[in-house]
Amino acid sequence: MVNNVQRVDDTWRTCTKSNSSGTSNSGGESSKESSRSSTPVLAADRTERLRDKMRRRTESGDHWFSLEFFPPRTASGAVNLVSRSVAETHLPLDWSLGRREIEKKTSNRTYIKQTFQTFDRMGSGGPLFIDITWHPAGDPGSNKETSSMMIASTAVNYCGLESILHLTCCNQTKEKITGYLSKAKHLGLKNIMALRGDPVGADWEEEEGGFNYATDLVKHIRCEFDDYFDICVAGYPTGHPEAESYDEDLRHLKEKVDAGADFIITQLFFRADTFLKFVRDCRAIGITCPILPGIFPIQGYQSLRQLVKLSKLEVPEEIMRVIEPIKDNDAAIRNYGIEQTVGMCRVLLESGNVPGLHFYTLNREVATMEVLRQLGLWIEDPRRPLPWAVSAHPKRKVEDVRPIFWASRPKSYIYRTQDWDDFPNGRWGNSSSPAFGELNDYYLFYLKSKSSKDALLKMWGEELTSEQSVYEVFTSYIKAQPNCAGHKVMCLPWNDELLAPETNLMMDELDKVNRRGVLTINSQPTINGKPSDDPIVGWGPPGGYVFQKAYLEFFTSSENVTVLLKVLKKYEPRVNYHIVNVHGQNTTNAHDMQPNAVTWGIFPGREIVQPTVVDPVSFMYWKDEAFALWIEQWAKLYEDESPSRMIIKYIHDNYFLVNLVDNDFPLDNCLWQVIDDMFELLDNPPEEQPTDPAK
Amino acid sequence: MVNNVQRVDDTWRTCTKSNSSGTSNSGGESSKESSRSSTPVLAADRTERLRDKMRRRTESGDHWFSLEFFPPRTASGAVNLVSRSVAETHLPLDWSLGRREIEKKTSNRTYIKQTFQTFDRMGSGGPLFIDITWHPAGDPGSNKETSSMMIASTAVNYCGLESILHLTCCNQTKEKITGYLSKAKHLGLKNIMALRGDPVGADWEEEEGGFNYATDLVKHIRCEFDDYFDICVAGYPTGHPEAESYDEDLRHLKEKVDAGADFIITQLFFRADTFLKFVRDCRAIGITCPILPGIFPIQGYQSLRQLVKLSKLEVPEEIMRVIEPIKDNDAAIRNYGIEQTVGMCRVLLESGNVPGLHFYTLNREVATMEVLRQLGLWIEDPRRPLPWAVSAHPKRKVEDVRPIFWASRPKSYIYRTQDWDDFPNGRWGNSSSPAFGELNDYYLFYLKSKSSKDALLKMWGEELTSEQSVYEVFTSYIKAQPNCAGHKVMCLPWNDELLAPETNLMMDELDKVNRRGVLTINSQPTINGKPSDDPIVGWGPPGGYVFQKAYLEFFTSSENVTVLLKVLKKYEPRVNYHIVNVHGQNTTNAHDMQPNAVTWGIFPGREIVQPTVVDPVSFMYWKDEAFALWIEQWAKLYEDESPSRMIIKYIHDNYFLVNLVDNDFPLDNCLWQVIDDMFELLDNPPEEQPTDPAK
Repeated sequence: MVNNVQRVDDTWRTCTKSNSSGTSNSGGESSKESSRSSTPVLAADRTERLRDKMRRRTESGDHWFSLEFFPPRTASGAVNLVSRSVAETHLPLDWSLGRREIEKKTSNRTYIKQTFQTFDRMGSGGPLFIDITWHPAGDPGSNKETSSMMIASTAVNYCGLESILHLTCCNQTKEKITGYLSKAKHLGLKNIMALRGDPVGADWEEEEGGFNYATDLVKHIRCEFDDYFDICVAGYPTGHPEAESYDEDLRHLKEKVDAGADFIITQLFFRADTFLKFVRDCRAIGITCPILPGIFPIQGYQSLRQLVKLSKLEVPEEIMRVIEPIKDNDAAIRNYGIEQTVGMCRVLLESGNVPGLHFYTLNREVATMEVLRQLGLWIEDPRRPLPWAVSAHPKRKVEDVRPIFWASRPKSYIYRTQDWDDFPNGRWGNSSSPAFGELNDYYLFYLKSKSSKDALLKMWGEELTSEQSVYEVFTSYIKAQPNCAGHKVMCLPWNDELLAPETNLMMDELDKVNRRGVLTINSQPTINGKPSDDPIVGWGPPGGYVFQKAYLEFFTSSENVTVLLKVLKKYEPRVNYHIVNVHGQNTTNAHDMQPNAVTWGIFPGREIVQPTVVDPVSFMYWKDEAFALWIEQWAKLYEDESPSRMIIKYIHDNYFLVNLVDNDFPLDNCLWQVIDDMFELLDNPPEEQPTDPAK
Repeated sequence: MVNNVQRVDDTWRTCTKSNSSGTSNSGGESSKESSRSSTPVLAADRTERLRDKMRRRTESGDHWFSLEFFPPRTASGAVNLVSRSVAETHLPLDWSLGRREIEKKTSNRTYIKQTFQTFDRMGSGGPLFIDITWHPAGDPGSNKETSSMMIASTAVNYCGLESILHLTCCNQTKEKITGYLSKAKHLGLKNIMALRGDPVGADWEEEEGGFNYATDLVKHIRCEFDDYFDICVAGYPTGHPEAESYDEDLRHLKEKVDAGADFIITQLFFRADTFLKFVRDCRAIGITCPILPGIFPIQGYQSLRQLVKLSKLEVPEEIMRVIEPIKDNDAAIRNYGIEQTVGMCRVLLESGNVPGLHFYTLNREVATMEVLRQLGLWIEDPRRPLPWAVSAHPKRKVEDVRPIFWASRPKSYIYRTQDWDDFPNGRWGNSSSPAFGELNDYYLFYLKSKSSKDALLKMWGEELTSEQSVYEVFTSYIKAQPNCAGHKVMCLPWNDELLAPETNLMMDELDKVNRRGVLTINSQPTINGKPSDDPIVGWGPPGGYVFQKAYLEFFTSSENVTVLLKVLKKYEPRVNYHIVNVHGQNTTNAHDMQPNAVTWGIFPGREIVQPTVVDPVSFMYWKDEAFALWIEQWAKLYEDESPSRMIIKYIHDNYFLVNLVDNDFPLDNCLWQVIDDMFELLDNPPEEQPTDPAK
């Protein structure tokens, strides 16, 4: 990409243009190719608004996809998991056809957690955005964990997904709608899908000055919130079922766009031609904004039938002919759906009129992922822009540094810093003490273990007999091996997932020290300039190099700490340490309480990025959380006053939380040697060396 | 150093204490040793105020020194350089005894330039501060280049020296004094030496409510400026000549301290005992602040005699006995002065009551430097806190990144950014376009070549015959070899000094490309993790590693640029480039106009420091300056319309300024290969390859 800069009246205008210096392309990439960026970059991708991202990727010819999800309805409190077969019966297009979902026989919390897991998994494939449907009947703008508003907020803030919140306006007052929009803005939502929704009651009539059409909502958003939101509207390739005619419906769509909509997502359709004709017709009447096809992979016979009935869509003969004979074979229908969808999508993409595909997922992953994989749009091994998952909240888009302590609990970190006004801009900054939000129920809910109490007891011990039995739990976790009762330890209170791949690089050392009561909860190895596209430790734009200082964080007994402090004297100033107990008694050799950068990257044409720091001030907040997890997640599995609970309580009350950084990143990690020296000194205390009477 | 942190009511209290965990010191440094810091650090040293620095270094037992200078008086315009023999006759203590300097037969500008060179040289030895005396008769608070105020401002802003400005108050109105203090504050001065000064006229009387004593000035400063300034006052080890008695004078001193002075610097004395008794007497009456001895190395017989007469000090017998016989031998007297001073300073330092030594330099370097060297206080090879010299202006104390372009013209950069409200805090930041001050006369004065027009003509050519003769000047400069007329080229318009040591690492390559009209004005080699104490490229705290991306900046013809752009296609994205001519026509492949960090350091327990960037926005300001230097410094040496001038003018009008960065710092620098490829393509243009008719 060649930027031409001109200085005009002390302001700078930057324009991108292809190289006009008359050079041949023989030696290098064409300008078009070199301006393509299908991998995340640090700056533009994070700060651009959705419509600009869309425009940039359209201009570069880079195809994308997006995903639609629906939130759970308020549930009865039943405890079953959402199953595939339950979801099977759901309808995708509640925003165009009203909400007619089947009551879910499930616990909301479990369901939400699964939703977020789905978000995390589906997000990893690299959708340009996701959208969350609106439940007029489900208190969609409330603070309930199941509301559309909160689900969309979580997707943005915790899962880092660019998200569109649907909003329907009919039967709503302007005040109510403005309230929803203000709340969405406050939560960091930047994109609205403006819909009319289904009128309530048979005798619904247009209301003078009210919200009668989606156009009214678009106008209202632009009037009240100016250009803050990107606005999406719905298009109907075969015309809206209630519209007088296809042409009449097209004119309505033109009105919506003229009122300020930025792009269009269409209702589903079964033939590529249907969509391509629709786009031609839109262009013909002067609709110039992006038009994204709504793609619905057929996933089952029942859901298709129900859909057809409600949407008044006709399933083409050629499709019915295939699926009628296999209607009782779910797998066969799904496979056909995938094949049919892939074929249709190929035609769409090759038409040159389709920059991206929008998928009605029904909150199910398999079919959509498979279609995307076959189309080559699913990013199998996405480049990480930073070593941690970035949040999509506008306030956090500049965030480029976090303390390492929350590495395994990023959602906790986001939650506890959600009230920050801005985020350290390149510096962690010791200029002001960051105030962390307190732990509370809401917060703890999001962070509850995925496993049931039963499963946890199996992993962490039905009955603990000593501190040693705790050590064994840690060791089993590290080695991903069964504990003495034969159960694999899949998680710990501080680590809800299996160990990160890079941690495997140190498995032997971790195993050894945990056996002796150095209970590790966070660590990273030394990295001295690995390429930024390294499959295990790489992050950031291509062509760069990433670095790490070795880090080790663990709980250990006060006896160990006393000896450790003696050992650490030998490692000054190579090793930085911070040691604290639950009462806040602490010792550190941090210089001026400054943060220590432990992960950084050097990239072509960029400033240095230092996304992870060991910060002595944040550590004091983290330790509250880290110690609380002993009690909240582990001790409380056991009866009050039970020996097992007392053992965990003892550790909580008496152990120290220690962090160590090896500053000398070009050398081999010395932190294991530090621990070895501690064991050595414990085993052979100098005071107890016998004096030889013969000498 | 062990920091203990306690969380109290959501605030953090940090206290430094020695390790109380009962560990032995056998394995490591004692806490006292490890808290000593005689090398500059990035944070504390730059942000602490003078009294805190003093306290910290006193507590650590780390001895320091400081230096007094006087500004030139307003001069007649004579053009001689200030010579040693002129300075010889000056008196040091104008602040206590009035200004009685001999009119200097010198050009102010030359003198000031020399003063700054003295500041730069003396500053490199690591004084804790310097102080600048006040000339009541010399318009000391004016904007004249020779005023005390402007000299002190320059020391702070351009030379990066912590500085104390003297200020005398007698015969002054409060408004006038407040005006001086406000101006000093505005200029970034933080420290005032509060003095009474010499009353004008024999019939001076105390004035009710006026400034009668230094105490009045101290009170006024504290009243009007609260705690903004650090205040120093004068102490007289043998009593002030006008005081009724020694005890009376001590009481006056106590009053000054009680009024808010932070520390004391004494009048000179000849015996250590004189000072040590004075300190005991001060402590006895409750003066607890630091008392710094004023040290005066005897440098000549005449200056000593005059001093004795004016200061009413008595030179001890034992000194007179030695110097009377050698009074006509300047060298012998100076040698004796050095020996005598070193002996006395040793006694003072060993007394344990003297944390630092204050030297009356008479603006002369040799004796003071020699004394400091013998005492081991002169820092021969000072560690650089950053790769560029930091400014001491309070606003700039957080400055930790600059564009590379002004590397050889740091004072120009400081001048052109003096109106910035704050400095990029860890990020260069493309959020706002930095506005650079315009070039003007004042600015150009500070940057005028040190050499005379004659010397410049000898170096750069009495007569230029072609662009080639310009190339030869560059080559001679690079190789530090005589030009064809036999004169060594010591500087270029863009480089007023000889090449930096690290540039020598690339001398052969530089030589080769300059010969062919790639006229290099700035470059740095690749550095992939050298220790921060490397004598050539090291900077920052010890135990760290420094890195650089290779950088090359040069003027070259538009023909070369056309070919270069073709070559650069092959080096995407490894090489970043920015190419511009005097008219602003420019091309860059900078990503989103973001800065590229080209120098950075990784240190124990710190955040990453990235002090130098290649910033496409600043480059457009720099190019104005870089092109202007062709005309202002070179073309104007020749007659208007002369062929020599026309040649320089042609280059100015037609050449491009190019910068190149090799992003791949772990590999060998590829920028020379880029230039070679350009030469290769120039020598063998593909279009002109003859087609063999036989084939």
